Amino acid sequence: MLKNIQIILCEPSHPGNIGATARAMKNMGLSALTLVSPERYPDAEATSRASGADNILEHATVVTDLPAGIATCQWLFGTSARTREFPWPQMTPRQAASKIIELAQGNQKIGILFGPERAGLSNEALQHCDYHIAIPTHPDYPSLNLSQAVQILCYEIYCYAIELQTSLPLPTNNHNFDKATQEEMGGLLAHFEETAVKLGFMDPEHPKKLLPRLRRLFSKSQLEKDEVNILRGFLKQVQRVVDT
Amino acid sequence: MLKNIQIILCEPSHPGNIGATARAMKNMGLSALTLVSPERYPDAEATSRASGADNILEHATVVTDLPAGIATCQWLFGTSARTREFPWPQMTPRQAASKIIELAQGNQKIGILFGPERAGLSNEALQHCDYHIAIPTHPDYPSLNLSQAVQILCYEIYCYAIELQTSLPLPTNNHNFDKATQEEMGGLLAHFEETAVKLGFMDPEHPKKLLPRLRRLFSKSQLEKDEVNILRGFLKQVQRVVDT
Repeated sequence: MLKNIQIILCEPSHPGNIGATARAMKNMGLSALTLVSPERYPDAEATSRASGADNILEHATVVTDLPAGIATCQWLFGTSARTREFPWPQMTPRQAASKIIELAQGNQKIGILFGPERAGLSNEALQHCDYHIAIPTHPDYPSLNLSQAVQILCYEIYCYAIELQTSLPLPTNNHNFDKATQEEMGGLLAHFEETAVKLGFMDPEHPKKLLPRLRRLFSKSQLEKDEVNILRGFLKQVQRVVDT
Repeated sequence: MLKNIQIILCEPSHPGNIGATARAMKNMGLSALTLVSPERYPDAEATSRASGADNILEHATVVTDLPAGIATCQWLFGTSARTREFPWPQMTPRQAASKIIELAQGNQKIGILFGPERAGLSNEALQHCDYHIAIPTHPDYPSLNLSQAVQILCYEIYCYAIELQTSLPLPTNNHNFDKATQEEMGGLLAHFEETAVKLGFMDPEHPKKLLPRLRRLFSKSQLEKDEVNILRGFLKQVQRVVDT
């Protein structure tokens, strides 16, 4: 499904950004890269920044003009920071991701266009697009690095895809821990109280707020059985030393 | 509000990633950068990749070890791709962003830790953290470039911050409590260790997993300053009794 999504870099000037784009794509399960009239390519810097994603560079389509780059796309999304002359359907990356995944699931061919580092996409290129995507950035410094913009889009697409398709593995959440019972927590608190009195740390006649505070502390700690055992082992040792 | 959020790079080896991190931060309205023991810094490549964000590099805090880097943080988030030995509260970047913004609004000091390029955060560093963040990536190629990982987190934080600006204020959460700093937590752990050795509860030559387990326990307990004081008062009394 993700194979229906093509990343298209228009006239990228830094080969490092091409390599970083390949890596960002592969991290997020994308593989189809098109380069329109890159300034320097192939280039050692592109390969180095691609890190383990050099297979994406090897299979990249390199063309000399935009019409050739977008020829097979059925849907075009253009990224743009600037407000344009013409009003256009504009989306956040998150909105775009949901639309893109919906289209990709219907086996539509999608292209996402990114402009050159200095100027961004031309008005002409943007006019080819069905939708414009604006990445939210701080007004004081809105200009994103090219490969970072690609990363954000690919990340949103991948997040949406895994949200939708449980067949793609999610990061495992490992909350299979063995939480202590209320009884075990009560035992720990009583053990603490007994030890505190023995130590002279707490006056049983005037306990102040010590016990409620400890109960709260232990309770919010969501202690596991093992942890209760460690703490009780410690208290046992304290009592042993006090008694000798 | 965003000024309460600190990006902390642990032992970054490539100066280019430091520069790209500064740019990614500034694009998303963040400014506080801490570098823990960078391999090469300052460096022309960092400045060049920072592009217009060199003011963030100029004001970056450079320290030689992790405890110094996180000393003033009240809440620590650690980014991690790997599944760890110990279960830990784990979040997606989006979940983390919402938590981070909520805390930042309550004027809490937050640190977001990123590990070195090759290995990621050490288990030790992760044990300092209140929460772990796992960026969803494709299992075939999960290793993100460092500055791209920073970009995704900063982007999610900024999106959440602007989403909030346009909506109703959050119900005030109970973050008016005075959470202990990392330095205070470190003091407590050291005090516990010293007492455990004195008691004969821990053999300093064979500490097994006691200290990491305690660090984790204290960290997930989200201790307040008062609670640290209570526990240290208890330990002090134990030592006094052992010494007599």
